[in-house]
Amino acid sequence: MSAAGRGRLAVVGLGPGDEAWRTPEATDRLAEATDLVGYGPYLRQVGPIAEHQTSHSFPNRKEAARAAFALDLAAAGRDVVIVSSGDPGIFAMASAVVEELHKESGSDRWAGVSITIVPGVTAATAAAARIGAPLGHDLCLISLSDVLKPWPVIEQRITAAATADFVIALYNPLSRHRPWQLQRALDLIGEQRSPETPVVEAHNVGRAEESVRSLTLGEVSTSTVDMRTLLIVGSSTTQQFTDADGRSWVYTPRHYPGGSAEGG
Amino acid sequence: MSAAGRGRLAVVGLGPGDEAWRTPEATDRLAEATDLVGYGPYLRQVGPIAEHQTSHSFPNRKEAARAAFALDLAAAGRDVVIVSSGDPGIFAMASAVVEELHKESGSDRWAGVSITIVPGVTAATAAAARIGAPLGHDLCLISLSDVLKPWPVIEQRITAAATADFVIALYNPLSRHRPWQLQRALDLIGEQRSPETPVVEAHNVGRAEESVRSLTLGEVSTSTVDMRTLLIVGSSTTQQFTDADGRSWVYTPRHYPGGSAEGG
Repeated sequence: MSAAGRGRLAVVGLGPGDEAWRTPEATDRLAEATDLVGYGPYLRQVGPIAEHQTSHSFPNRKEAARAAFALDLAAAGRDVVIVSSGDPGIFAMASAVVEELHKESGSDRWAGVSITIVPGVTAATAAAARIGAPLGHDLCLISLSDVLKPWPVIEQRITAAATADFVIALYNPLSRHRPWQLQRALDLIGEQRSPETPVVEAHNVGRAEESVRSLTLGEVSTSTVDMRTLLIVGSSTTQQFTDADGRSWVYTPRHYPGGSAEGG
Repeated sequence: MSAAGRGRLAVVGLGPGDEAWRTPEATDRLAEATDLVGYGPYLRQVGPIAEHQTSHSFPNRKEAARAAFALDLAAAGRDVVIVSSGDPGIFAMASAVVEELHKESGSDRWAGVSITIVPGVTAATAAAARIGAPLGHDLCLISLSDVLKPWPVIEQRITAAATADFVIALYNPLSRHRPWQLQRALDLIGEQRSPETPVVEAHNVGRAEESVRSLTLGEVSTSTVDMRTLLIVGSSTTQQFTDADGRSWVYTPRHYPGGSAEGG
Protein backbone atom coordinates (compact mmCIF):
# COMPACT_ATOMS: atom_id res chain seq x y z
CA MET A 1 0.00 0.00 0.00
CA SER A 2 1.20 3.49 -0.73
CA ALA A 3 2.06 5.78 2.15
CA ALA A 4 0.04 8.56 0.50
CA GLY A 5 -2.38 10.08 2.94
CA ARG A 6 -0.84 8.36 5.94
CA GLY A 7 -0.25 10.38 9.08
CA ARG A 8 2.14 9.90 11.91
CA LEU A 9 2.20 8.72 15.51
CA ALA A 10 4.46 9.76 18.38
CA VAL A 11 4.49 7.94 21.69
CA VAL A 12 5.53 10.80 23.94
CA GLY A 13 6.99 10.72 27.45
CA LEU A 14 5.92 13.84 29.33
CA GLY A 15 8.50 13.23 32.04
CA PRO A 16 7.35 13.52 35.65
CA GLY A 17 4.80 16.27 36.32
CA ASP A 18 6.95 19.39 36.04
CA GLU A 19 7.02 20.98 32.56
CA ALA A 20 10.62 22.01 33.24
CA TRP A 21 11.41 18.31 32.74
CA ARG A 22 9.53 17.92 29.43
CA THR A 23 11.88 17.66 26.45
CA PRO A 24 11.59 20.06 23.49
CA GLU A 25 10.87 17.09 21.21
CA ALA A 26 7.88 16.16 23.39
CA THR A 27 6.67 19.77 23.49
CA ASP A 28 6.96 20.11 19.72
CA ARG A 29 5.08 16.91 18.96
CA LEU A 30 2.32 17.88 21.37
CA ALA A 31 1.99 21.31 19.73
CA GLU A 32 1.85 19.85 16.22
CA ALA A 33 -0.58 17.03 16.97
CA THR A 34 -4.15 16.95 15.71
CA ASP A 35 -5.11 14.19 18.15
CA LEU A 36 -3.96 13.39 21.67
CA VAL A 37 -4.64 9.90 23.00
CA GLY A 38 -4.11 8.82 26.58
CA TYR A 39 -5.16 7.87 30.04
CA GLY A 40 -7.12 10.82 31.50
CA PRO A 41 -4.60 11.98 34.13
CA TYR A 42 -1.79 12.07 31.54
CA LEU A 43 -3.94 14.12 29.17
CA ARG A 44 -4.57 16.55 32.04
CA GLN A 45 -0.80 16.70 32.62
CA VAL A 46 -0.41 17.96 29.03
CA GLY A 47 -2.42 21.05 29.92
CA PRO A 48 -4.87 22.96 27.73
CA ILE A 49 -5.10 21.82 24.11
CA ALA A 50 -5.41 24.02 21.04
CA GLU A 51 -8.63 24.59 19.14
CA HIS A 52 -7.59 22.35 16.25
CA GLN A 53 -6.80 19.44 18.58
CA THR A 54 -8.96 16.55 19.72
CA SER A 55 -8.37 14.75 22.99
CA HIS A 56 -9.22 11.03 23.28
CA SER A 57 -9.32 9.92 26.90
CA PHE A 58 -8.97 6.21 27.68
CA PRO A 59 -9.30 4.37 30.97
CA ASN A 60 -6.20 2.89 32.56
CA ARG A 61 -5.43 -0.65 31.34
CA LYS A 62 -6.71 -1.52 27.84
CA GLU A 63 -3.37 -0.39 26.44
CA ALA A 64 -3.73 -2.61 23.36
CA ALA A 65 -7.02 -0.99 22.36
CA ARG A 66 -5.58 2.47 22.97
CA ALA A 67 -2.55 1.69 20.81
CA ALA A 68 -4.61 0.27 17.93
CA PHE A 69 -6.99 3.25 18.07
CA ALA A 70 -4.07 5.68 17.81
CA LEU A 71 -2.44 3.74 14.98
CA ASP A 72 -5.73 3.68 13.06
CA LEU A 73 -6.08 7.45 13.49
CA ALA A 74 -2.56 7.96 12.16
CA ALA A 75 -3.24 5.61 9.26
CA ALA A 76 -6.23 7.79 8.42
CA GLY A 77 -3.90 10.76 8.03
CA ARG A 78 -3.98 12.35 11.47
CA ASP A 79 -0.99 13.64 13.44
CA VAL A 80 -1.38 11.60 16.61
CA VAL A 81 0.35 11.68 19.99
CA ILE A 82 -0.05 8.99 22.64
CA VAL A 83 0.89 10.55 25.97
CA SER A 84 2.69 8.69 28.76
CA SER A 85 3.98 10.01 32.03
CA GLY A 86 7.75 9.69 32.58
CA ASP A 87 9.45 7.72 29.81
CA PRO A 88 7.09 5.86 27.44
CA GLY A 89 9.40 2.84 27.32
CA ILE A 90 9.49 2.23 31.10
CA PHE A 91 6.31 0.42 32.21
CA ALA A 92 4.30 2.59 29.83
CA MET A 93 2.70 2.75 26.37
CA ALA A 94 5.57 2.21 23.93
CA SER A 95 5.58 -1.55 24.45
CA ALA A 96 1.86 -1.86 23.74
CA VAL A 97 2.19 0.17 20.53
CA VAL A 98 5.06 -1.93 19.19
CA GLU A 99 3.24 -5.12 20.15
CA GLU A 100 0.23 -4.01 18.08
CA LEU A 101 2.57 -3.29 15.15
CA HIS A 102 3.95 -6.80 15.55
CA LYS A 103 0.47 -8.36 15.35
CA GLU A 104 -0.14 -6.52 12.07
CA SER A 105 3.36 -6.83 10.64
CA GLY A 106 2.06 -9.12 7.90
CA SER A 107 -0.65 -6.70 6.80
CA ASP A 108 -0.88 -3.19 5.35
CA ARG A 109 -3.18 -1.89 8.10
CA TRP A 110 -0.56 0.56 9.41
CA ALA A 111 1.96 0.52 6.55
CA GLY A 112 3.35 3.95 5.77
CA VAL A 113 2.54 5.44 9.18
CA SER A 114 5.56 7.32 10.54
CA ILE A 115 6.15 6.22 14.13
CA THR A 116 8.41 7.88 16.69
CA ILE A 117 9.00 7.08 20.35
CA VAL A 118 9.93 10.26 22.25
CA PRO A 119 11.91 9.43 25.39
CA GLY A 120 11.40 11.27 28.65
CA VAL A 121 12.81 11.62 32.13
CA THR A 122 11.64 8.56 34.06
CA ALA A 123 10.28 8.79 37.62
CA ALA A 124 13.22 7.01 39.24
CA THR A 125 15.86 9.46 38.04
CA ALA A 126 13.67 12.47 38.89
CA ALA A 127 12.97 11.15 42.40
CA ALA A 128 16.66 10.40 42.85
CA ALA A 129 17.62 13.93 41.80
CA ARG A 130 15.45 15.44 44.53
CA ILE A 131 17.44 13.78 47.29
CA GLY A 132 20.94 13.25 45.89
CA ALA A 133 22.12 10.23 43.94
CA PRO A 134 20.64 7.00 45.32
CA LEU A 135 20.88 5.43 41.83
CA GLY A 136 24.63 6.11 41.61
CA HIS A 137 25.51 2.45 41.08
CA ASP A 138 24.08 -0.64 39.35
CA LEU A 139 20.30 -0.68 39.70
CA CYS A 140 17.10 -2.52 38.89
CA LEU A 141 13.72 -1.08 38.00
CA ILE A 142 10.92 -3.45 39.01
CA SER A 143 7.18 -2.95 38.67
CA LEU A 144 5.31 -4.54 41.57
CA SER A 145 2.13 -4.82 39.51
CA ASP A 146 1.17 -8.47 39.18
CA VAL A 147 -1.75 -7.72 36.89
CA LEU A 148 0.25 -8.72 33.79
CA LYS A 149 2.90 -10.99 35.27
CA PRO A 150 2.71 -13.75 37.88
CA TRP A 151 3.69 -12.76 41.41
CA PRO A 152 6.32 -15.56 41.73
CA VAL A 153 8.28 -13.96 38.85
CA ILE A 154 8.33 -10.68 40.77
CA GLU A 155 9.47 -12.44 43.95
CA GLN A 156 12.28 -14.15 42.08
CA ARG A 157 13.45 -10.85 40.62
CA ILE A 158 13.35 -9.02 43.93
CA THR A 159 15.34 -11.72 45.64
CA ALA A 160 17.88 -11.82 42.80
CA ALA A 161 18.27 -8.03 42.86
CA ALA A 162 18.62 -7.93 46.65
CA THR A 163 21.09 -10.81 46.75
CA ALA A 164 23.31 -9.27 44.08
CA ASP A 165 23.25 -5.93 45.95
CA PHE A 166 21.54 -3.81 43.31
CA VAL A 167 19.83 -0.56 44.20
CA ILE A 168 16.13 -1.32 43.58
CA ALA A 169 13.57 1.18 42.29
CA LEU A 170 10.01 -0.07 42.80
CA TYR A 171 7.41 1.24 40.34
CA ASN A 172 3.65 0.79 40.90
CA PRO A 173 4.30 -0.30 44.48
CA LEU A 174 0.72 -0.60 45.70
CA SER A 175 -2.88 -0.05 44.70
CA ARG A 176 -6.29 -0.76 46.15
CA HIS A 177 -6.35 -4.01 44.21
CA ARG A 178 -2.80 -4.98 45.22
CA PRO A 179 -2.61 -4.22 48.93
CA TRP A 180 -0.18 -6.87 50.27
CA GLN A 181 2.50 -7.18 47.58
CA LEU A 182 4.67 -4.28 48.73
CA GLN A 183 5.11 -5.58 52.28
CA ARG A 184 6.03 -8.99 50.91
CA ALA A 185 8.60 -7.35 48.59
CA LEU A 186 10.10 -5.36 51.47
CA ASP A 187 10.29 -8.53 53.58
CA LEU A 188 12.17 -10.32 50.79
CA ILE A 189 14.62 -7.43 50.49
CA GLY A 190 14.95 -7.39 54.29
CA GLU A 191 16.17 -10.97 54.21
CA GLN A 192 19.25 -9.70 52.35
CA ARG A 193 19.65 -6.11 53.62
CA SER A 194 20.02 -4.45 56.99
CA PRO A 195 16.99 -2.61 58.46
CA GLU A 196 19.27 0.47 58.42
CA THR A 197 19.39 0.45 54.59
CA PRO A 198 18.37 3.89 53.27
CA VAL A 199 15.07 4.04 51.40
CA VAL A 200 13.74 6.99 49.40
CA GLU A 201 9.97 7.42 49.43
CA ALA A 202 8.93 9.81 46.67
CA HIS A 203 5.37 11.01 46.13
CA ASN A 204 4.10 13.04 43.17
CA VAL A 205 7.56 14.01 41.97
CA GLY A 206 7.50 17.19 39.90
CA ARG A 207 3.99 18.13 41.02
CA ALA A 208 2.79 20.82 43.43
CA GLU A 209 2.12 18.21 46.12
CA GLU A 210 5.57 16.60 45.78
CA SER A 211 7.20 15.06 48.82
CA VAL A 212 10.48 13.12 48.84
CA ARG A 213 11.98 11.83 52.06
CA SER A 214 14.60 9.39 53.22
CA LEU A 215 13.94 6.74 55.81
CA THR A 216 15.25 3.25 56.49
CA LEU A 217 14.12 -0.15 55.31
CA GLY A 218 13.02 -0.87 58.86
CA GLU A 219 10.88 2.27 58.94
CA VAL A 220 9.03 1.95 55.62
CA SER A 221 5.31 1.56 56.12
CA THR A 222 2.94 0.54 53.37
CA SER A 223 0.36 2.89 54.90
CA THR A 224 2.07 5.95 53.36
CA VAL A 225 2.48 4.45 49.87
CA ASP A 226 0.09 4.59 46.93
CA MET A 227 0.15 4.31 43.12
CA ARG A 228 1.89 7.68 42.78
CA THR A 229 4.73 6.68 45.07
CA LEU A 230 8.11 5.56 43.84
CA LEU A 231 10.36 3.72 46.28
CA ILE A 232 14.13 3.43 45.95
CA VAL A 233 15.74 0.86 48.23
CA GLY A 234 19.47 1.36 48.63
CA SER A 235 22.19 -1.25 48.26
CA SER A 236 24.59 -2.23 51.05
CA THR A 237 26.75 0.81 50.19
CA THR A 238 24.01 3.47 50.00
CA GLN A 239 24.59 6.34 52.44
CA GLN A 240 22.25 8.76 54.20
CA PHE A 241 23.38 11.94 55.96
CA THR A 242 22.33 15.47 56.88
CA ASP A 243 24.49 18.35 55.64
CA ALA A 244 25.62 21.48 57.51
CA ASP A 245 22.41 23.24 56.43
CA GLY A 246 20.20 20.46 57.80
CA ARG A 247 19.30 19.07 54.40
CA SER A 248 18.88 15.30 54.08
CA TRP A 249 20.80 13.43 51.35
CA VAL A 250 20.96 9.87 50.04
CA TYR A 251 23.57 8.56 47.61
CA THR A 252 25.16 5.38 46.41
CA PRO A 253 28.90 5.78 45.78
CA ARG A 254 30.21 4.80 42.37
CA HIS A 255 33.03 2.89 44.03
CA TYR A 256 32.47 -0.44 45.74
CA PRO A 257 34.47 -2.19 48.47
CA GLY A 258 37.43 -3.87 46.82
CA GLY A 259 37.51 -1.47 43.86
CA SER A 260 39.94 1.41 43.54
CA ALA A 261 39.02 4.70 45.23
CA GLU A 262 38.95 6.96 42.19
CA GLY A 263 38.48 6.59 38.48
CA GLY A 264 35.78 6.43 35.86
CA MET B 1 28.10 30.35 58.91
CA SER B 2 25.81 32.71 57.08
CA ALA B 3 24.74 31.92 53.55
CA ALA B 4 25.47 35.51 52.54
CA GLY B 5 27.62 35.63 49.44
CA ARG B 6 27.19 31.93 48.72
CA GLY B 7 26.38 30.90 45.17
CA ARG B 8 24.70 27.82 43.81
CA LEU B 9 25.54 24.56 42.07
CA ALA B 10 23.48 22.52 39.62
CA VAL B 11 24.54 19.05 38.52
CA VAL B 12 22.92 18.99 35.10
CA GLY B 13 22.08 16.05 32.87
CA LEU B 14 22.30 17.11 29.23
CA GLY B 15 20.49 13.99 28.08
CA PRO B 16 21.95 12.08 25.13
CA GLY B 17 23.50 14.25 22.42
CA ASP B 18 20.43 15.74 20.78
CA GLU B 19 19.35 19.14 22.16
CA ALA B 20 15.74 18.14 21.45
CA TRP B 21 16.18 15.83 24.47
CA ARG B 22 17.59 18.46 26.83
CA THR B 23 15.08 19.57 29.47
CA PRO B 24 14.11 23.25 29.89
CA GLU B 25 15.45 23.15 33.46
CA ALA B 26 18.86 22.05 32.13
CA THR B 27 18.80 24.71 29.41
CA ASP B 28 17.88 27.42 31.90
CA ARG B 29 20.60 26.51 34.38
CA LEU B 30 23.20 26.39 31.60
CA ALA B 31 22.13 29.85 30.36
CA GLU B 32 22.27 31.38 33.85
CA ALA B 33 25.59 29.85 34.93
CA THR B 34 28.75 31.85 35.36
CA ASP B 35 30.91 28.71 35.40
CA LEU B 36 30.61 25.39 33.61
CA VAL B 37 32.59 22.46 34.97
CA GLY B 38 32.95 19.12 33.24
CA TYR B 39 34.73 16.49 31.27
CA GLY B 40 35.77 18.03 27.95
CA PRO B 41 33.41 16.14 25.61
CA TYR B 42 30.41 17.03 27.79
CA LEU B 43 31.39 20.71 27.77
CA ARG B 44 31.57 20.51 23.97
CA GLN B 45 28.08 18.95 23.98
CA VAL B 46 26.78 22.10 25.71
CA GLY B 47 27.75 24.16 22.67
CA PRO B 48 29.11 27.72 22.58
CA ILE B 49 29.18 29.53 25.91
CA ALA B 50 28.31 33.17 26.54
CA GLU B 51 30.87 35.91 27.04
CA HIS B 52 30.25 36.11 30.80
CA GLN B 53 30.79 32.36 31.24
CA THR B 54 33.94 30.44 32.12
CA SER B 55 34.42 26.83 31.11
CA HIS B 56 36.51 24.53 33.35
CA SER B 57 37.48 21.35 31.52
CA PHE B 58 38.51 18.32 33.56
CA PRO B 59 39.90 14.97 32.43
CA ASN B 60 37.74 11.88 32.76
CA ARG B 61 38.02 10.19 36.16
CA LYS B 62 39.01 12.45 39.08
CA GLU B 63 35.31 13.03 39.76
CA ALA B 64 35.96 13.83 43.43
CA ALA B 65 38.35 16.67 42.58
CA ARG B 66 35.94 18.00 39.97
CA ALA B 67 33.07 17.97 42.46
CA ALA B 68 35.06 19.72 45.21
CA PHE B 69 36.31 22.34 42.73
CA ALA B 70 32.75 23.10 41.64
CA LEU B 71 31.47 23.28 45.23
CA ASP B 72 34.29 25.65 46.16
CA LEU B 73 33.43 27.90 43.22
CA ALA B 74 29.78 27.97 44.31
CA ALA B 75 30.79 28.68 47.92
CA ALA B 76 32.73 31.67 46.58
CA GLY B 77 29.52 33.07 45.14
CA ARG B 78 29.54 31.77 41.58
CA ASP B 79 26.58 30.23 39.70
CA VAL B 80 28.09 26.86 38.80
CA VAL B 81 26.91 24.00 36.59
CA ILE B 82 28.57 20.59 36.48
CA VAL B 83 27.61 18.99 33.18
CA SER B 84 26.96 15.29 32.72
CA SER B 85 25.76 13.45 29.67
CA GLY B 86 22.45 11.61 30.03
CA ASP B 87 21.13 11.68 33.58
CA PRO B 88 23.61 12.89 36.22
CA GLY B 89 22.46 10.25 38.72
CA ILE B 90 23.10 7.23 36.45
CA PHE B 91 26.82 6.36 36.46
CA ALA B 92 27.64 10.07 36.40
CA MET B 93 28.60 13.08 38.50
CA ALA B 94 25.76 13.46 41.03
CA SER B 95 27.07 10.67 43.25
CA ALA B 96 30.55 12.21 43.43
CA VAL B 97 29.13 15.61 44.37
CA VAL B 98 26.96 14.22 47.17
CA GLU B 99 29.85 12.11 48.43
CA GLU B 100 32.00 15.25 48.72
CA LEU B 101 29.18 16.95 50.64
CA HIS B 102 29.11 13.95 52.96
CA LYS B 103 32.84 14.24 53.67
CA GLU B 104 32.35 17.90 54.68
CA SER B 105 28.98 17.52 56.40
CA GLY B 106 30.58 18.35 59.74
CA SER B 107 32.15 21.57 58.48
CA ASP B 108 30.99 24.90 57.07
CA ARG B 109 33.06 24.63 53.91
CA TRP B 110 29.99 24.42 51.64
CA ALA B 111 27.26 25.53 54.05
CA GLY B 112 24.73 27.82 52.46
CA VAL B 113 25.45 26.70 48.90
CA SER B 114 22.20 25.98 47.05
CA ILE B 115 22.51 22.60 45.33
CA THR B 116 20.21 21.14 42.68
CA ILE B 117 20.43 17.92 40.70
CA VAL B 118 18.76 18.35 37.29
CA PRO B 119 17.64 14.98 35.91
CA GLY B 120 17.97 14.11 32.24
CA VAL B 121 17.01 11.46 29.71
CA THR B 122 19.40 8.56 30.28
CA ALA B 123 21.08 6.72 27.41
CA ALA B 124 19.17 3.47 27.89
CA THR B 125 15.72 5.00 27.42
CA ALA B 126 16.87 7.08 24.44
CA ALA B 127 18.45 4.05 22.75
CA ALA B 128 15.33 2.02 23.47
CA ALA B 129 13.12 4.69 21.93
CA ARG B 130 15.00 4.50 18.62
CA ILE B 131 14.09 0.86 18.07
CA GLY B 132 10.82 0.36 19.94
CA ALA B 133 10.45 -0.67 23.57
CA PRO B 134 13.10 -3.20 24.59
CA LEU B 135 12.92 -1.89 28.21
CA GLY B 136 9.18 -2.56 28.40
CA HIS B 137 9.48 -4.83 31.43
CA ASP B 138 11.61 -5.16 34.60
CA LEU B 139 15.19 -4.19 33.84
CA CYS B 140 18.69 -3.73 35.24
CA LEU B 141 21.24 -1.06 34.40
CA ILE B 142 24.78 -2.35 34.92
CA SER B 143 28.06 -0.55 34.30
CA LEU B 144 30.73 -2.93 33.06
CA SER B 145 33.50 -0.64 34.28
CA ASP B 146 35.57 -2.45 36.90
CA VAL B 147 37.72 0.59 37.61
CA LEU B 148 35.76 1.41 40.77
CA LYS B 149 34.26 -1.96 41.67
CA PRO B 150 35.72 -5.46 41.67
CA TRP B 151 34.96 -7.58 38.62
CA PRO B 152 33.49 -10.48 40.68
CA VAL B 153 30.74 -8.13 41.90
CA ILE B 154 29.85 -7.36 38.29
CA GLU B 155 29.82 -11.05 37.39
CA GLN B 156 27.51 -11.82 40.29
CA ARG B 157 25.11 -9.06 39.23
CA ILE B 158 25.07 -10.12 35.60
CA THR B 159 24.35 -13.71 36.53
CA ALA B 160 21.62 -12.67 38.97
CA ALA B 161 20.01 -10.39 36.37
CA ALA B 162 20.17 -13.05 33.65
CA THR B 163 18.85 -15.81 35.90
CA ALA B 164 15.88 -13.71 37.06
CA ASP B 165 15.09 -12.84 33.42
CA PHE B 166 15.60 -9.08 33.60
CA VAL B 167 16.22 -7.03 30.49
CA ILE B 168 19.84 -5.87 30.93
CA ALA B 169 21.22 -2.52 29.78
CA LEU B 170 25.02 -2.47 29.77
CA TYR B 171 26.66 0.94 30.25
CA ASN B 172 30.39 1.51 29.66
CA PRO B 173 30.66 -1.87 27.93
CA LEU B 174 34.26 -1.71 26.78
CA SER B 175 37.30 0.54 26.60
CA ARG B 176 40.93 0.23 25.57
CA HIS B 177 41.79 -0.53 29.18
CA ARG B 178 38.94 -3.02 29.64
CA PRO B 179 39.04 -5.15 26.48
CA TRP B 180 37.82 -8.59 27.69
CA GLN B 181 35.07 -7.84 30.20
CA LEU B 182 32.23 -7.48 27.70
CA GLN B 183 32.75 -10.90 26.13
CA ARG B 184 32.84 -12.46 29.57
CA ALA B 185 29.59 -10.68 30.47
CA LEU B 186 27.93 -11.88 27.25
CA ASP B 187 29.11 -15.43 27.96
CA LEU B 188 27.55 -15.30 31.43
CA ILE B 189 24.27 -14.05 30.01
CA GLY B 190 24.48 -16.74 27.32
CA GLU B 191 24.52 -19.42 30.02
CA GLN B 192 20.95 -18.34 30.89
CA ARG B 193 19.58 -17.03 27.58
CA SER B 194 19.13 -18.41 24.08
CA PRO B 195 21.55 -17.21 21.36
CA GLU B 196 18.40 -15.96 19.57
CA THR B 197 17.74 -13.39 22.34
CA PRO B 198 17.37 -9.93 20.76
CA VAL B 199 20.14 -7.44 21.53
CA VAL B 200 20.10 -3.72 20.73
CA GLU B 201 23.48 -2.20 19.89
CA ALA B 202 23.27 1.59 20.07
CA HIS B 203 26.12 3.93 19.13
CA ASN B 204 26.21 7.69 19.68
CA VAL B 205 22.48 7.99 20.34
CA GLY B 206 21.18 11.48 19.60
CA ARG B 207 24.30 12.50 17.67
CA ALA B 208 24.87 12.97 13.96
CA GLU B 209 26.73 9.66 13.72
CA GLU B 210 24.00 7.69 15.57
CA SER B 211 23.41 4.07 14.69
CA VAL B 212 21.01 1.72 16.47
CA ARG B 213 20.49 -1.84 15.27
CA SER B 214 19.02 -5.08 16.48
CA LEU B 215 20.90 -8.34 16.38
CA THR B 216 20.94 -11.49 18.48
CA LEU B 217 22.96 -12.50 21.50
CA GLY B 218 24.73 -15.05 19.31
CA GLU B 219 25.68 -12.36 16.79
CA VAL B 220 27.06 -9.67 19.12
CA SER B 221 30.72 -9.01 18.52
CA THR B 222 32.89 -7.00 20.84
CA SER B 223 34.71 -5.66 17.78
CA THR B 224 31.90 -3.21 16.99
CA VAL B 225 31.52 -1.92 20.57
CA ASP B 226 33.29 1.01 22.23
CA MET B 227 32.79 3.44 25.14
CA ARG B 228 30.01 5.25 23.31
CA THR B 229 28.02 2.09 22.78
CA LEU B 230 25.06 1.08 24.90
CA LEU B 231 23.91 -2.53 24.74
CA ILE B 232 20.45 -3.75 25.70
CA VAL B 233 20.14 -7.52 26.06
CA GLY B 234 16.54 -8.72 25.96
CA SER B 235 14.82 -11.05 28.40
CA SER B 236 13.30 -14.41 27.42
CA THR B 237 10.16 -12.57 26.24
CA THR B 238 11.79 -9.82 24.17
CA GLN B 239 10.64 -9.85 20.53
CA GLN B 240 12.25 -8.71 17.29
CA PHE B 241 10.38 -8.25 14.00
CA THR B 242 10.30 -6.27 10.78
CA ASP B 243 7.16 -4.28 9.97
CA ALA B 244 5.31 -3.92 6.67
CA ASP B 245 7.57 -0.97 5.76
CA GLY B 246 10.76 -2.97 6.38
CA ARG B 247 11.60 -1.22 9.64
CA SER B 248 13.18 -3.29 12.40
CA TRP B 249 11.64 -3.25 15.91
CA VAL B 250 12.50 -4.71 19.30
CA TYR B 251 10.17 -4.75 22.30
CA THR B 252 9.57 -6.50 25.58
CA PRO B 253 5.88 -7.06 26.28
CA ARG B 254 4.52 -5.77 29.57
CA HIS B 255 2.76 -9.10 30.09
CA TYR B 256 4.63 -12.21 31.08
CA PRO B 257 3.72 -15.89 30.61
CA GLY B 258 1.30 -16.84 33.36
CA GLY B 259 0.02 -13.27 33.82
CA SER B 260 -3.26 -12.02 32.40
CA ALA B 261 -3.27 -10.76 28.81
CA GLU B 262 -4.38 -7.19 29.39
CA GLY B 263 -4.30 -4.71 32.21
CA GLY B 264 -2.10 -2.12 33.82
